[in-house]
Amino acid sequence: MIRGKASIEFENPPHILGSGSIVGQKEGEGPLGAFFDEVSEDPFFGQDSWEAAESAMQRRAAQIAIEAAGLTREEIRYSFAGDLLGQLITTSFGLIDLQLPLFGLYGACSTMGEALCLGAMTQAAGYAGRVLCLASSHFASAEKEFRFPLGYGTQRPESTTWTVTGCGAIILGSSGGAVKITGVTHSKIEHLGVKYSMSMGAAMAPAAADLIMQNLIDFDITPDYYDWIYTGDLGKVGQRALIDLLKEEGVCLEGFHRDCGIEIYDAAQQDTHAGGSGCGCSAVTLCAQILPRMREGRWKRILFIPTGALLSTVSFNEGQPIPGIAHGVMLERV
Amino acid sequence: MIRGKASIEFENPPHILGSGSIVGQKEGEGPLGAFFDEVSEDPFFGQDSWEAAESAMQRRAAQIAIEAAGLTREEIRYSFAGDLLGQLITTSFGLIDLQLPLFGLYGACSTMGEALCLGAMTQAAGYAGRVLCLASSHFASAEKEFRFPLGYGTQRPESTTWTVTGCGAIILGSSGGAVKITGVTHSKIEHLGVKYSMSMGAAMAPAAADLIMQNLIDFDITPDYYDWIYTGDLGKVGQRALIDLLKEEGVCLEGFHRDCGIEIYDAAQQDTHAGGSGCGCSAVTLCAQILPRMREGRWKRILFIPTGALLSTVSFNEGQPIPGIAHGVMLERV
Repeated sequence: MIRGKASIEFENPPHILGSGSIVGQKEGEGPLGAFFDEVSEDPFFGQDSWEAAESAMQRRAAQIAIEAAGLTREEIRYSFAGDLLGQLITTSFGLIDLQLPLFGLYGACSTMGEALCLGAMTQAAGYAGRVLCLASSHFASAEKEFRFPLGYGTQRPESTTWTVTGCGAIILGSSGGAVKITGVTHSKIEHLGVKYSMSMGAAMAPAAADLIMQNLIDFDITPDYYDWIYTGDLGKVGQRALIDLLKEEGVCLEGFHRDCGIEIYDAAQQDTHAGGSGCGCSAVTLCAQILPRMREGRWKRILFIPTGALLSTVSFNEGQPIPGIAHGVMLERV
Repeated sequence: MIRGKASIEFENPPHILGSGSIVGQKEGEGPLGAFFDEVSEDPFFGQDSWEAAESAMQRRAAQIAIEAAGLTREEIRYSFAGDLLGQLITTSFGLIDLQLPLFGLYGACSTMGEALCLGAMTQAAGYAGRVLCLASSHFASAEKEFRFPLGYGTQRPESTTWTVTGCGAIILGSSGGAVKITGVTHSKIEHLGVKYSMSMGAAMAPAAADLIMQNLIDFDITPDYYDWIYTGDLGKVGQRALIDLLKEEGVCLEGFHRDCGIEIYDAAQQDTHAGGSGCGCSAVTLCAQILPRMREGRWKRILFIPTGALLSTVSFNEGQPIPGIAHGVMLERV
């Protein structure tokens, strides 16, 4: 069951029974627009604060996923979820009405990976029949938490990414659905000294590279084992760094790599610079692009690696570097 | 293995192989002073910011626990850890040098319970030989995050608790040590409408009551099954609320309840009002009071329930209530 140094292979792989995605207008206008379960033109999602808006997205995504799995709330045993805000207030208030035990998770933008890993480990061990895994981000709540008031209209360098307004939710169970989770791999916390918070893709690339190398070693495979290796939100700058880092290790990733942050926007048309980011980025791209293509049978195996940049405004202002983390999930068509 | 509605009973209970605790001067002057592994008179723990000080405590507590277990860093497979600060920066920077995969957790002051639950679930399922579970808080970093600059010397009402400066760490493995984790129980997110952030014990009591009721039902036991039921940091106000809530359910907790927040300080002498709080409170009380007395054979069974108040300055200022959460760990003398 333990594979190599940092992986687990499941004897009874959890199946993805249902998924739900909800996004904002900008994401709806992007290349994946037609594939999200819901697109809201109201950035407040009917609420009166950005935080409450993000919580409303969580409630709706969870509901869509539970319904897609043909289940009711009472048939789910645990929730594994998180967001980017201090003290995870989006998640606490977003999921309170579900009345489920909550494991609150923080892995920065890797949170959907952390949730799927722990959810799959819990389900596969027989601790739960079904679990909910969820992560969200909201452009405006993230700007408020990490950067400048929106009204300032601050200019953004080309290396920045745009925080996705979106929430993705997944229900895992023992059978049913077309996609299963066969294994997981975890990175260490990695940093190469990047301190520039406007280039988070570069900060996260080392953790993604560590995870990919470890996955290939632990399962004794090469990148062509997968249809695609999907990182979370490295964007164009981080993708370049990742490919270069792996080339140094003798691994050629070109032709096997996609990044949720690059897929979700049309950067040239939508002025999103290096790509999308935020916990919601990989979560909704999983639901709207990866899983549908696997269900259609177009792709058989995906390594899904949400990546996170471990910083806060306090750590940044105190001169700390930006370490990266990654949680990898091996998806396979049943 | 699944017990009842919200519990797990382990077929192969993980054992506590080692523990480590480090605290600040005030905690060192309290009733448990002689039982902590280390007391530092320097509130900065040799660092130059409160956040770095808290990270230094984490490094040291992890090191003490790993040494107490007779292990090296390389023999630990995963870390489960968290703190109170936005984006968990204490933990990210505190544990980076361990070079272990990290599951970042946020359960407010219940985080040590969340870490022990997920760590035990992971170890018992055979996903890891040994895991590290850790949580910390620091009075000054918490005041900076949640309240007023220390220099203001703000007055505190009698219902407030004092954030513990401390970090507790536990190593779990399959055999060895005198205490094992036989099961876990989780609460739902509960609130009865408490909005007053200076009375967090009252805000957390409903979750603790829910968890205790569920544990007694799931395992078909009464409170006298345990030597003590230990909550995390309800303090005197929360303890009263908990006892009253359970009385309404027909459960008499008097004579079976202790609270880490009450145990850790001499409130009358130390001016800590309702008691101690913070992730570190239950974590270090576990290491310095509960485990030693179990190892000595004085106590056989403890239900350890770290409790958390799910709020941030943003949610408070936006008028949200303070929901509570709890994670329960069943400890038993081997």
